[in-house]
Amino acid sequence: MQKKRLAPPLRFLMAARQRELGRLEALTDLSRLVDLISQLVHGLQKERGLSNALLCDVGDTMLAEVAAQARDSAAIEAEVRAAWDCLIEPSGPAEHASVRLLSAVAHALQQLEQLETLREQVRRRAIAAEAATSRYTGLLGALLAIVFELADTAVDADVTRALVALLNFIQGKELCGQERACGVIGFLNGYFTDERKAQMQALAQAQERCFDAFLAHGGPRDADAQAWRSVGELTETLARLRTIAARTDAGQQVDRQLSAAWFAAATARIDAMHHVERKLIDELARLCQARITSMREELADHRVLLDQLSSADPRDGAGRVFNVQARPLNALPDDPLGAGLQASVLDMLARQTARLADSEHQLAQARKALEERKYVERAKWVLVAALGVTEKDAHDQLQKTAMNTGQPLQAVAREVIDKLGGKRVDGRKR
Amino acid sequence: MQKKRLAPPLRFLMAARQRELGRLEALTDLSRLVDLISQLVHGLQKERGLSNALLCDVGDTMLAEVAAQARDSAAIEAEVRAAWDCLIEPSGPAEHASVRLLSAVAHALQQLEQLETLREQVRRRAIAAEAATSRYTGLLGALLAIVFELADTAVDADVTRALVALLNFIQGKELCGQERACGVIGFLNGYFTDERKAQMQALAQAQERCFDAFLAHGGPRDADAQAWRSVGELTETLARLRTIAARTDAGQQVDRQLSAAWFAAATARIDAMHHVERKLIDELARLCQARITSMREELADHRVLLDQLSSADPRDGAGRVFNVQARPLNALPDDPLGAGLQASVLDMLARQTARLADSEHQLAQARKALEERKYVERAKWVLVAALGVTEKDAHDQLQKTAMNTGQPLQAVAREVIDKLGGKRVDGRKR
Repeated sequence: MQKKRLAPPLRFLMAARQRELGRLEALTDLSRLVDLISQLVHGLQKERGLSNALLCDVGDTMLAEVAAQARDSAAIEAEVRAAWDCLIEPSGPAEHASVRLLSAVAHALQQLEQLETLREQVRRRAIAAEAATSRYTGLLGALLAIVFELADTAVDADVTRALVALLNFIQGKELCGQERACGVIGFLNGYFTDERKAQMQALAQAQERCFDAFLAHGGPRDADAQAWRSVGELTETLARLRTIAARTDAGQQVDRQLSAAWFAAATARIDAMHHVERKLIDELARLCQARITSMREELADHRVLLDQLSSADPRDGAGRVFNVQARPLNALPDDPLGAGLQASVLDMLARQTARLADSEHQLAQARKALEERKYVERAKWVLVAALGVTEKDAHDQLQKTAMNTGQPLQAVAREVIDKLGGKRVDGRKR
Repeated sequence: MQKKRLAPPLRFLMAARQRELGRLEALTDLSRLVDLISQLVHGLQKERGLSNALLCDVGDTMLAEVAAQARDSAAIEAEVRAAWDCLIEPSGPAEHASVRLLSAVAHALQQLEQLETLREQVRRRAIAAEAATSRYTGLLGALLAIVFELADTAVDADVTRALVALLNFIQGKELCGQERACGVIGFLNGYFTDERKAQMQALAQAQERCFDAFLAHGGPRDADAQAWRSVGELTETLARLRTIAARTDAGQQVDRQLSAAWFAAATARIDAMHHVERKLIDELARLCQARITSMREELADHRVLLDQLSSADPRDGAGRVFNVQARPLNALPDDPLGAGLQASVLDMLARQTARLADSEHQLAQARKALEERKYVERAKWVLVAALGVTEKDAHDQLQKTAMNTGQPLQAVAREVIDKLGGKRVDGRKR
């Protein structure tokens, strides 16, 4: 890079900046992955909704639609897989992929491998609507888990904040998809059982919480306010159908044609959300690029200073910092700590460290929301390890305890970790 | 690695394990660096003590000893520099070096560049004993900061615990070195001023705290108990001289020859500590190696399973998990989730994630002690950034506030971060 050999402190200062830049540059891969995964999620949500309608409907009118959507999903799946492959290629951004991220990808791939089988079962109507929905939902959960792990690797506070808002939005949208599926089954049956009513209500409330969190962590930009408002308007349409659903029972059945109306209304709303989501992701990509550009400029600034420093004449007093060991020992400078450029180097070192401390602080603040989720995730796996239950059972147990005790999920999670976390897993036994 | 192409979930599962192993393997470099730096620290502590005696003494008897020790320090310094260079070599363990670690190395190098000048000033008696001591102490502080950053990059709970114990020990030993220097000046003057008495007392108390923390975080192994006991015995000798020092004043002077006795007693104790330190470092290296070996074995176990899985006949139902997409779609298995080996893969995924959650939990516990130090470090740089003061002034200000308010340093640090941490540094301005 420099023609002259840099003084050792500056070489390490530059190496530190380069490392920082390298980590920031990984944000480009991150925003690209989030983009692709969110597209796959959207495609699979649609596929889940259509499959559900197909499995509940008597006719075969949906077959072509389901097949077309499956083809769309498969196309984006191929892109997602290629992007994941880059994570473990020797020349790829492997350095930045965390162990947890790679494990999350393995989980999702494990479910994706089953997808073609599921599609065939749907096509042959060889699976119940609920079972198919739950399989799609499991896969979507695994994909969202990857987005959470990606957010965990973001090294920039602003990007992390944007990701937390986006994550809450994506999760809210997924809950809307689940509500759509649940509603289709109910309306096609002509009425909602008590259990299904409770499920519909829980899904609507959980959506609210997600979108509240989305707004609390930044919400849409001013430019996207219109897109977000149209989601609100479409929610009103859906709310009328929700009310109708809540009033049904075995003795008070409604026209099964309402199922199509419900599906259309829920889909219009989810599509509007997808529009907002696209804007959030564009904004995320822009933000990542802006952070990288500003870091590159900063690094270039440093290079200018370094060039000045290293081109200083070694016999010139101002250059002494680079030549302390080469200088004739009987010609000590008056000021042993050096002046001028020596002060510049100290200044650069102090600024670098202050900036690091500041950005770590900002990052720690921005990550608080992610940390909370981490507790729940960790508690789940502590239960798996300690009790030998499945992941789903562990999750259900946490939620049940939270509901029964009226505590927030996070508090329950902390308790589990404190009580059982000390029990180490013997990973070597199979 | 495998001749047959692995199924995607397993490729990522293996990649995650490899990444984990790679991070653990960095522990070897870590323990080697800690070893080398602690040797340099010991050499420079000795050099500080001898230089101090030379600068206070009237004769030139110490000149040869100081020169010999400086040569020893320089030899180990060359080794340390070579090891640091590996951190930023393209083929080196760069991946694992944090931005903060590289910055800390830059700080230390910046001070090392001044060392030859300082030595020449000592040789020519062109610097006061206090000034020389403080320059050596600054350099030693920068070296210890690197060890703290190294501890911060350790990804294993047991290793982190061992490092926290070692760090407290090294810090305690450094305070003993500072006490030795302070005592030499006092005894050579014939008496201790009130200020110097207070300094001696503060240094002795701070040592106690460090060694208490060392014991609380594990202390010496049973095999090293004898070495640790001999430190205790040598402390008793020193305590008698401490008492004498505390009783002196301008009117109650003591024989200046006591300075040599003090130096000898303090040095014997520090050398005994060095002995304990060597054993702790050997133990650290052993521990790192053990963790790497056990992870390698675990990985090998997985390979055996993977070989079994991937050599299963694709037409064999048990192998279906790898061939979902290739299987004739009209030949669906009875159990769509698959059985046998499919369950093995899910089991491996669940175990991997449970183990990760467990080790993260263990690591978080072990790092609590480091986190506390991080707060103080962060608060210092928040002050530098917000008030434009020097690093030393910021540190002094924190300590002063803690003393004046009777709060622990960490509480003061948290307050500073909360109050001033939000003010971002504009890193681009110089």
